[in-house]
Parts: sequence; structure tokens; C-alpha cells
Amino acid sequence: MMRGLMQDRPLMISDILSHAVAAHGDQEIVSRLVDEPIWRYDYAACAARVAQAAHMLEALGIGPGDRVTSLAWNTHRHFELLYAAPGIGAVLHTANPRLSEDQILYTINHAGSSILFFERNFLPLIEKFRTRLPAVRRFVMLSDAERLDPGEVDAESYEVLIAGYSTKYNWPAFDENSGAVLCYTSGTTGDPKGVLYSHRSIVLHGMAGGLSGALALSAFDCVMPCASLYHCTAWGLPYAVAINGCKLVLPCDKMDGPSLHELIVNESVTFSGGVPTIWTMYLAFLEQTGQSTAMLNRVVIGGSAVPHAMAETFKRKHGVSVRQIWGMTETSPIGVLSTPTPQLAAMGEDQLDEVLWTRQGRLQFGIQLKIVDDEGVELPRDGESAGRLLVRGPWVIDSYFKSDAPGADADGWFDTGDIATLDRLGFMRITDRAKDVIKSGGEWISSIDIENAAVACPGVRVAGVIGVYDPKWEERPLLVVEPHPGATVTPEGVRTFLSERITRWWLPETILVAEVPLTATGKVDKKRLRDTYARSPMQVGA
Amino acid sequence: MMRGLMQDRPLMISDILSHAVAAHGDQEIVSRLVDEPIWRYDYAACAARVAQAAHMLEALGIGPGDRVTSLAWNTHRHFELLYAAPGIGAVLHTANPRLSEDQILYTINHAGSSILFFERNFLPLIEKFRTRLPAVRRFVMLSDAERLDPGEVDAESYEVLIAGYSTKYNWPAFDENSGAVLCYTSGTTGDPKGVLYSHRSIVLHGMAGGLSGALALSAFDCVMPCASLYHCTAWGLPYAVAINGCKLVLPCDKMDGPSLHELIVNESVTFSGGVPTIWTMYLAFLEQTGQSTAMLNRVVIGGSAVPHAMAETFKRKHGVSVRQIWGMTETSPIGVLSTPTPQLAAMGEDQLDEVLWTRQGRLQFGIQLKIVDDEGVELPRDGESAGRLLVRGPWVIDSYFKSDAPGADADGWFDTGDIATLDRLGFMRITDRAKDVIKSGGEWISSIDIENAAVACPGVRVAGVIGVYDPKWEERPLLVVEPHPGATVTPEGVRTFLSERITRWWLPETILVAEVPLTATGKVDKKRLRDTYARSPMQVGA
Repeated sequence: MMRGLMQDRPLMISDILSHAVAAHGDQEIVSRLVDEPIWRYDYAACAARVAQAAHMLEALGIGPGDRVTSLAWNTHRHFELLYAAPGIGAVLHTANPRLSEDQILYTINHAGSSILFFERNFLPLIEKFRTRLPAVRRFVMLSDAERLDPGEVDAESYEVLIAGYSTKYNWPAFDENSGAVLCYTSGTTGDPKGVLYSHRSIVLHGMAGGLSGALALSAFDCVMPCASLYHCTAWGLPYAVAINGCKLVLPCDKMDGPSLHELIVNESVTFSGGVPTIWTMYLAFLEQTGQSTAMLNRVVIGGSAVPHAMAETFKRKHGVSVRQIWGMTETSPIGVLSTPTPQLAAMGEDQLDEVLWTRQGRLQFGIQLKIVDDEGVELPRDGESAGRLLVRGPWVIDSYFKSDAPGADADGWFDTGDIATLDRLGFMRITDRAKDVIKSGGEWISSIDIENAAVACPGVRVAGVIGVYDPKWEERPLLVVEPHPGATVTPEGVRTFLSERITRWWLPETILVAEVPLTATGKVDKKRLRDTYARSPMQVGA
Repeated sequence: MMRGLMQDRPLMISDILSHAVAAHGDQEIVSRLVDEPIWRYDYAACAARVAQAAHMLEALGIGPGDRVTSLAWNTHRHFELLYAAPGIGAVLHTANPRLSEDQILYTINHAGSSILFFERNFLPLIEKFRTRLPAVRRFVMLSDAERLDPGEVDAESYEVLIAGYSTKYNWPAFDENSGAVLCYTSGTTGDPKGVLYSHRSIVLHGMAGGLSGALALSAFDCVMPCASLYHCTAWGLPYAVAINGCKLVLPCDKMDGPSLHELIVNESVTFSGGVPTIWTMYLAFLEQTGQSTAMLNRVVIGGSAVPHAMAETFKRKHGVSVRQIWGMTETSPIGVLSTPTPQLAAMGEDQLDEVLWTRQGRLQFGIQLKIVDDEGVELPRDGESAGRLLVRGPWVIDSYFKSDAPGADADGWFDTGDIATLDRLGFMRITDRAKDVIKSGGEWISSIDIENAAVACPGVRVAGVIGVYDPKWEERPLLVVEPHPGATVTPEGVRTFLSERITRWWLPETILVAEVPLTATGKVDKKRLRDTYARSPMQVGA
């Protein structure tokens, strides 16, 4: 090769904020807080406080490579830490308060953090933990001075700690592959695994996220992330908004309808996103109060599939476009996003909506996807062939933090654990989790497709499908449906309903009406379903 | 530092095209050609031919680090070479046919290219050159088989050469800092200097170019680059369109009104860009024929300042937004782009247009600008202080190809040779070329500002300002105005006109009515003006 002669200046997170100040320093950031009034400043004032926070971290003995933990909501102070810690070469571990207490403890200790920043309402939890956090030297409450409650951990006030430091910081440039933010997966089995994002991965992910085929952000947008900053940095929005000059609204942990609506209306929010549950609550609030969505024009939904009725209501009643996002902690998280293309639009609006609402999304520049069979052979992108979904790219994990757990393979492909199809138009659809897939007579049956068909059956509240042993076909699907309270549902009724809607040979021989166990995040708990039904074949025939 | 654990997969140009195929393989590319019918295919078919071209290059003995030269217009074959050569690790030198013949020869020999790809209409020039291109082994005409004219150089047909090769190529991943495309500056003094773009710089530049604050590209755009592919890859558009899934229309060298209009209407072009001259011709065509601009909604203008009347006509008469772009070969070229912000929009439409049409543009993510005084001290971003404009970033030059000419300084700052202001809203305005700036009594006078004011004077066709020696003030401005044919212009009339429009102490003591020499690209030739007027002080008092 011949070396190019352009600057190989590293991609630095600090340059994102410096750009925001120089290009749109007046743009606002608004933050709801725990028991404090709504906070309001602009990128220039934010950058001044980020500089102070950087000086504060150094004064507390934090240097390059050191880890600090945040246990925090979507607030401006959390946003500041997402720049201050990486800015000095340290790593911010964004602890996930939705994990079990033992898991939260595990991640803080595994990260090796020496300072714990936390919101006021986590004080009781921190007090309970304190003796089990040997490496933590300082406890800092994300609070002003007057409302500080030191508790049993001698917590200090973030505001007191940063006050007095210079509002300038001469941000260093260093290796762009240095770690910046550490997030743990919330897998249901085993210990959480750490994913250590680098400056390079965060900057590239932030640039790609703003493109029109992805989140389509502009300086005219007001962005309110309802995905949590501790969940893969809320889809990278803290960085993408600064790159694109968007106004930013941070809703703290107040995801109820009235609280979100207040911000959407008062701050003229144009863009928001989060898990379906939030939007179910919000639409219910709008329905009850007869309110409208003001300037809101798009909602990106991730975490679970978008319910069709939700997308329909947003569109028809409020003129709001619903888009899906799919990704994982291991993919930073942007994998695919369901945004329109002229080819799709040419098929007519119904077809367009059908694709946008039922596919997880379309390919994004910078991340590569392929599907392979059990032997690792790539399958065609025909929208029909389903295989293990592998991903690769500069914001995809290479290996887990301090772990021997396998990351990407030698060619950089990371196995998502999902089974999916890809089509000619660049759209990806997940048909199953690999561990849930049912192999029957050598062919795959999608448990998700059967469940989706079953919940459309009148009276059915939730449906779960697992594979059970079958001497002839190896595996066959078993379906458990739980009715809405008061509704009457029979196995025969469900069978008749399904027989018109799914491939004949997918039809489960066994359909049971019973309670369907759910996980803490509201998904069907397949492990418990298997424990109950798959291991006692005699009962299955019931 | 602690190393992050994401993949450090290199940014490769070949991944741009692979993405285009997977995500929007059906999107069209349309190309006008020299004496061939209009060509039409899609990204998938294009990628197949790029693979064939890569095999062809290898078969001709081209390997990593080797250089090949194109002397070509905006055509699909040129587009293919912009992917094929870098894809195999070679370097494409895009020779600039607008340079003098000696300079074209110089750049091909300086690049050390062993293959020369050229459009049919360059055959006479190539025949003339042939004995002075010792390193060139093969001459390839960008032509189909039937229209091939081998001439005296035994030219081969591109189509014949690529035919028969596999339409698949297993693109290698290698160091992203490897050279990919080589462009020479067209400076008026000395030999042209080579700028060697890397895979990294091109990919990052292409990603940034698509963002809403820059070119704002989407899959619903049809992009027709009228800037030349040989001029810093037409603003990176060949890469940005593939990243964003735009339809691409290539106008060859046919920049006349009727030819452009045909493509704009027939292909539903939404976005175009180029130097002001092209748009002057196009607007005149529209005026003469009473035609409208169809789907065209934005025109980006670079190379010279946008004439106010042009921006006004595009906007009021055709609903087309005019945007300025400023950059240099050394900046890939995106430096700044004039796109709206909510802060500007809030000032009202007149104020918004005034800023968008008179500033060179606003800061873009990825590239940093600062202005400094003669001692290198940074000046405030107040819209008033003018200083030397320095730029830095991953698509800014580090050093010139095979040259000792200075590139960037130790901190990565490249001196653009321009004098500019920066303002609080992130906009940059060039007030002068550093070599044209007039220093009077220790203060700077902008020759450009005086010229712009003078050409607004009735009867004035073109105006040129230079600094001349003054025993008291060190330098004072001297203004030469050339009237429109038949118009009567007097020095007194110009002086009265100017006195109400520029700072009093800027008013030139000497105003001459005479012919103003222009360069080959239509700019005022300050060197000749100085030769004529600045070196004969006695004459100046005339």
C-alpha cells in the first residue's frame, strides 16, 4: 500500500462537544431532575460545566483508563459525565438500575470503578450496598448543595464538587481506540457482560446515526430520548444530537404520559424514542385527555416489535411516523432502522407501512449484516431464507470486558443469537431467537411468527411457543395462550384461527390455555415455559 | 488509556459500494457519455462492473500502491474507476483537463501512473503527449468496442478490457490510511501539488457530507454533480450518494443549459451543484425558454461567491434553495456549507438569506476552523475580527505528495491562505486571500469587500483591488474598475457610490477605469494587476 497523506487525527468524543459549541452554542438542553426544578442551558454553558466536571474528576484522582460509575437517569448531569469522563481518557460505566441488585453490584465491582455518581433516589440502595463496594472511594450524589442528603455513605454534591473549577479544559487527543463508555448486557442467564465502547466507535456511530436513512437528525429537531442513557447511551443520542445541533430534552425517569406530554408540548419536541410500553402509556394519556402531539413528528421504537395498532394510531390520529430500531448492547446499539426508501414508497402507502412496521429495519452504512446456515454458509437475501444473523462493523463488539466469553469471530462477525431474514430492498426481519428456534423435520419454525399470529386471536392476551421433543420430527411447536381476564379461549378456537394464518405444517399439535410466565422486562419467559412443559412430555399430551 | 473493545475494522471505500448494493441495489445511476447514448444501470449492476474493472486492473499488472490516471468527465466509467482502483489498494489520479497541457503532463508523470484512462475527446491531446509519458504502459479509452479509435497510442477499449471478468471481487480490508485518490491543486504559481486522499479520509468525508447540516442527502434525492469528478471527487459526491442511497445522474462534460435541463427534467434531479458560471447559463436558458426546474430543490455552489441575483432568482422564481460550499483540494473539499439553523431562521427570512448567501458557510462536524493573527494567536469568533484561516481534521491534508512543500503544522492546523471571520452562530466569511490582503496603518482592509461594493455600482462590470505602497500607511488600496461595454463610469462616480457603502478609511485614494485582467478560471488576476499598477508608483497617481 501507499500511505495516504491526510491527517490521521483521532476521532475524539471531546471534539463532538467542541463542535456543538462552535457551530450551535446557543442551542438548548433542557432536563427534568429528581426533586429539583427543570434545568435549562445551552451547549456552550454545558461544555463549560463538562470542563469543570473533567477538572473535578482529575482532582478526585481519576486519570486515563480509570473507571467511574453512574447510576443515573436521563438528566443533564448524566449527559455531562458522558463527555467529561471520556474527555480525560477515563471510562464511564453507566450502571443499569433495572438489573437485579446483585447484578448492579456485580457490574460496579467488575468495572473496578472508584467513584459512584448516583441520583438522589438511589440513596437507600447505595446505603445498602456500601460495604460490598470495596473499590469505591467516593460517593457523589447528582444533586445541588441545598438538597444534598449525605446518608450513610457521606455522599458529596456534584454541584459543590464541580463549582470553582475552570470552565475551560484543554481536551487531549489520544488513541481513538481507547475505551470511553462501559455498558453491561442484561442477559437473563449468567453474569452481565461488559461492552467497552471506544472513542472511535462512539464517534462513527454518532455520525451514522444522524444520517437520513437512520435517525435523520437536523438542527431543527428537538430530541427527547426516552431510551435510557444507561442502555447503550440511549442509542448514541447524546452524541448524535451534538453532532447535528439538535435541541435536547432529557425526561429524567418520568416516563408517564402527563410528564412526557408536558415536555413534548412546552419544548416543541419533534423526535422521541423508547420501548413500546412508554408509548402505550402515552397514547392512552392522549386518548383520555383528547390532547394532540404538538410538534412531534417521529417516534423511534426499540426493544420489542412495534404493535401494529400503536403505529397505526400514531400515524392516522397524530400524523407521527413510527420507526423501528433494532440493535444490541454489543452493536452500540444501531443495527438496523426502519426508514422509507423510494423503492418501497413506490409500492404504495399500505405496503410501505407494512414493511416499516413489521421489519426490524433496513441496513445502515457502517454496519454489515449477513445470515448464515448451521454450517456458516451465507444464505440468500430473498426475504424468505432465515438464518443466524451475524453483524460486523466499527461499532460492533470485538470482545467482552475482562471476559473469556466469545466476541466476534476472526473475520469480525459477531453472532447476534437471532434468526433473521434479509431482503433485496435491504430490510431485516427477526424470525426468532436462535435458542428459541424450533427445528422440525430439518426445517425451521419461527416461534415469534406463531406467537404474533396467536395474540391476534380474539380473547388472547399473551402467547408463548416452545419446541418440544417429537420422535418423528425431532421437534414440534407447543403453544400456550393466556386469555384476557374474563375472556373465554379454547384450544380448538385458537387452532381454527391459526390454521388460516400460518403455514399448515407449523400448526402446533398441542395448544394449552394457561398462564404464560413473563420476564422482568415483559417478554415471554421461554426458560420457565420449557421448565414447565418441555421436560414432562407426558403432560404435553394433555 | 484502557483500550476499547470494539472492532477496529478499517474504513474502506469498497464497503461503501457493498453497502449501496445491499441496502439499495435497485437505485439508478444514469450517465451521459461522449458520443454514446445515455447509460443507465443500478448500484448492483455498477458494483458488478467495478468488480470487473478491479480484475482488469490486476490483469494489467496494477497492485497495491500503484497509480493509474483518469482524464475523464463525469461519467459512469469514471465513477467505476473511483471505486475499482482504491478497492484493490491502488491509487486513482484524477487528472484535471482544465490545467495547462504542461501541467497535465507534469501531474501524470509526478503521480508515476502506468495506465492512462481517457475520454474519447482527449485522444488528440494524448497523441500529442505520448512521447513525454515515459511511465505510461497502457492507454485505455473510456469507450465501447465499436466506437474505439486506437489513434497513435494503440488505445484499448475499457469495455473490451473489463468484459469477461468475474462480476464478483473479494474486496480486501487493509490499513484505512492507505492512499486512494490523488488530486492536484490548480495553483496559479509553481507546479501543481498532489493531495493524496486516504480510504479513511474519503469515508469520513462521505459520511459527514450526507448529514443534514451539510448536503442533507437522502435516498429520495436524485443527485447530479456538475462539479467535476477530477476536482476533489466532485465534493465527495460519488461516495456520499452511495452511502445515502441517492439516485445519481452524471452529466459528462455537457454543462450547457439545454443538456442540464434535459437531465433535470427527465431524471427528476432534486440536488445539483457546481461553479456559478454553470448556473448563470442554466438560469439564462430557463429565462429564454420559460421552462421550470421540475423537481430540483437545492443547488450547492462552490468555487466562487454566489452572486446575489442568482440566489434570488433561484429562490423567488423557481423555489430552489441555493447553498454555498467552501473548501479546497487540501480539505477534500468540504470545509463549510451554508445551511440554515433555527437560530438564523428565527431572525426572519431576509436575515437568513443574507447570511446564507454572503457567508461561505457554517462549521461542519469533523473539521475544525480557527482564525489567528500574524503571531498565531487565536482571534475571537465575533463576526468582526478577521485573521488567517486555519483548518484541521481527518480529511485535511497532512503533507503533499512527494513534496517538501509545507502541509499542516505540528498540531495539525493547515493554513488555507485565506483571511476570514468566524461568528457566534458558526458561520465563516472569507474577507480576502492572505496574499491579497491590504495592511494599512496596522489594520487589515478587505480587497474582496471593496470589489463586491464596486461591482454593485451601475455600469461596473468587474472590479479589482490591490494594495500599493504608501509612505505613511504602509499600504493603501488601489481600485481598477472595468465598465460594461458602452457604459460610462467615472472615478468620481465610483468614489461617491463607495463612500456610502464601505468604511470611510477603506476608500481607495486611487480609482482607475481600465481593463481588469482575469485568470483562466474567471477570477481577477491580482498578479497582473500588481505587475501593471503596484510596481510603478509614479503611474499610480495618474
